[in-house]
Amino acid sequence: MSTVKLVDEATEHPKVKAIFADIKVTKKIDRVPNMWRALAAHPDHLELCWSRLKVIMAPGKVDMLTKEIIALAVSATNGCTYCINSHTAAAEKLGMTEEMHGEILAVVGLFNQMNKLAEAMQIEPDILPVAAR
Amino acid sequence: MSTVKLVDEATEHPKVKAIFADIKVTKKIDRVPNMWRALAAHPDHLELCWSRLKVIMAPGKVDMLTKEIIALAVSATNGCTYCINSHTAAAEKLGMTEEMHGEILAVVGLFNQMNKLAEAMQIEPDILPVAAR
Amino acid sequence: MSTVKLVDEATEHPKVKAIFADIKVTKKIDRVPNMWRALAAHPDHLELCWSRLKVIMAPGKVDMLTKEIIALAVSATNGCTYCINSHTAAAEKLGMTEEMHGEILAVVGLFNQMNKLAEAMQIEPDILPVAAR
Amino acid sequence: MSTVKLVDEATEHPKVKAIFADIKVTKKIDRVPNMWRALAAHPDHLELCWSRLKVIMAPGKVDMLTKEIIALAVSATNGCTYCINSHTAAAEKLGMTEEMHGEILAVVGLFNQMNKLAEAMQIEPDILPVAAR
Amino acid sequence: MSTVKLVDEATEHPKVKAIFADIKVTKKIDRVPNMWRALAAHPDHLELCWSRLKVIMAPGKVDMLTKEIIALAVSATNGCTYCINSHTAAAEKLGMTEEMHGEILAVVGLFNQMNKLAEAMQIEPDILPVAAR
Amino acid sequence: MSTVKLVDEATEHPKVKAIFADIKVTKKIDRVPNMWRALAAHPDHLELCWSRLKVIMAPGKVDMLTKEIIALAVSATNGCTYCINSHTAAAEKLGMTEEMHGEILAVVGLFNQMNKLAEAMQIEPDILPVAAR
Repeated sequence: MSTVKLVDEATEHPKVKAIFADIKVTKKIDRVPNMWRALAAHPDHLELCWSRLKVIMAPGKVDMLTKEIIALAVSATNGCTYCINSHTAAAEKLGMTEEMHGEILAVVGLFNQMNKLAEAMQIEPDILPVAAR
Repeated sequence: MSTVKLVDEATEHPKVKAIFADIKVTKKIDRVPNMWRALAAHPDHLELCWSRLKVIMAPGKVDMLTKEIIALAVSATNGCTYCINSHTAAAEKLGMTEEMHGEILAVVGLFNQMNKLAEAMQIEPDILPVAAR
Repeated sequence: MSTVKLVDEATEHPKVKAIFADIKVTKKIDRVPNMWRALAAHPDHLELCWSRLKVIMAPGKVDMLTKEIIALAVSATNGCTYCINSHTAAAEKLGMTEEMHGEILAVVGLFNQMNKLAEAMQIEPDILPVAAR
Repeated sequence: MSTVKLVDEATEHPKVKAIFADIKVTKKIDRVPNMWRALAAHPDHLELCWSRLKVIMAPGKVDMLTKEIIALAVSATNGCTYCINSHTAAAEKLGMTEEMHGEILAVVGLFNQMNKLAEAMQIEPDILPVAAR
Repeated sequence: MSTVKLVDEATEHPKVKAIFADIKVTKKIDRVPNMWRALAAHPDHLELCWSRLKVIMAPGKVDMLTKEIIALAVSATNGCTYCINSHTAAAEKLGMTEEMHGEILAVVGLFNQMNKLAEAMQIEPDILPVAAR
Repeated sequence: MSTVKLVDEATEHPKVKAIFADIKVTKKIDRVPNMWRALAAHPDHLELCWSRLKVIMAPGKVDMLTKEIIALAVSATNGCTYCINSHTAAAEKLGMTEEMHGEILAVVGLFNQMNKLAEAMQIEPDILPVAAR
């Protein structure tokens, strides 16, 4: 049960109505996901979140499937149920097969383990990224 | 300061020596990263970790650069200093440019925000991944 | 489904009975929240938790609404469903409006994003808190 | 050591120069914090982050000190060193005394404990926030 | 609702069939837990996970009950519902009483609180583990 | 650099002086760890934390070494540097050998991986803990 009211898809609030329409066109879907209906309780915050997501989740030097895979890795690491569902479905739509899904989860699991071992042993860095040299 | 002793790269322990050699060949590097020297205090655990990582971090249906990007996303989400350094450097070696790095971090930051908003508002899933239908 | 038995509100265990009564008086509620009924399986731990929470969650230099807002920010960052529900309701009771709720969640989301960017880029501190100078 | 290059404060890049100036005016500080110099490696992302933070971190229905306290609570829960430093200093500047600091951390510590107990015992919600009824 | 299909316990896939049989014998249970049926969608990953878990979760210098208690502490700290359920049940089977359960959760709660206080105050280490001296 | 002032070990503040003495006697150490000197900036919070820790970290149905191992598992999962150092040293003092240390970290790493896989695949519980049946 959401802690905020979900705004009706058929809302007449001008800003929300425009963003809901843009979400459906941009994402090529015919209904507004619950996340956006929940954010719409605060139209200014909805606008900040959507306008920013729209820019970052556009194709650039990194392709869309890789971006959804990053979103899935973040969501699985945070354990966010809604987010895992949503990004698994989005990645599938962009071409993630069941086999790829398995490999991706294997990498996510592996580095959650390695991360905690590195923390527990407090390993000093041995190689610096190019930009930091 | 590590909480465990780092095993010397020139160790004569047969299992550790073999794994250290394999790490250098597989990763095309000329020294053993501190993480593996720390794990080597427990040769059986070193072997479990390395043999498993070697299989998962081989090219498959998902390419190596995408796998290192997933590792970077997991490490940034967990806030593991050593791991962020290590996977940033590895992704750079596999072709991640500064511009790609910027885009990747933007996606990581974005979904850490969206994840916490989804948790805070306790949004119900609206679309199921293909496999779960 | 809870992993521990919830103790009945009408329990005759003297320590638990006294704490249940104190919880209802202190929080001005007419039933004992499930969290405290679960902790009551271990009366000494219940007492430690309640006596400590009662002191910390009393008005001091920081007002009660701000304290509940902090609790909500922590709970959203941890993704604890029960806790988010409970502190959202408590903050509403202390005067948090829907508009304030929206602003608070916007700040929580924003800094979960900024935190992960700061981790990913491993930024060095630039200004020290007063107390540490 | 940062994983990205910090852009010089005296940069001539037009977009970055304008944002750096705006940061100093808005935050009433005379140098650009490292976080923004790091984000500036990617001017578009810098702009997205700054324009969004500027809107959310303006006084509204929730006052600025409370917003910085929320940021501190989120940062402590995430364990982000840079962020804890930065928001402790900012809250001090807005009037947080040492005594308030102590009380705030007490609340942060308390609910990180209670959150994990609620998770471990898997407690069902007992009271719904107003908005969800 | 799982994001992957659960493989039927009666599967004829040779590798999966063998591992399912081994799980039931090793854990002395008469059905395959959902976790392993989900991993079985990717037989190679199932094999990597099970063979590794089987080695680490065998009695060694640390007894089985302590190992399950560690697993419970990790799972509660991560807030993983399935995992908390599974390791609470496993620890009960190995002799964890209700009283021990209460004490264990008290320690888990306590150090989640102390951890966040240590982070928020950025305490410098005062004593080094033996291995690091 | 700590965000709060460390109180001098030779303080004359009566409550703090008494607690510092009790910490040294109880923990059989000859100096006050930095964590407690930091908490002492707020004597009431110091007292709440110490009195609670003293009760929970006393031998009960669960022995002291197991309790320190739980604390280490929680700290490694949270990635708290100070806490990992402190509980590794404490567990070593109570008899944790290097081999046990290796096994414990292996279990911690393993279940951080399995937790994230369980989250990513959203597995339904299959077995209920005794108390919840």
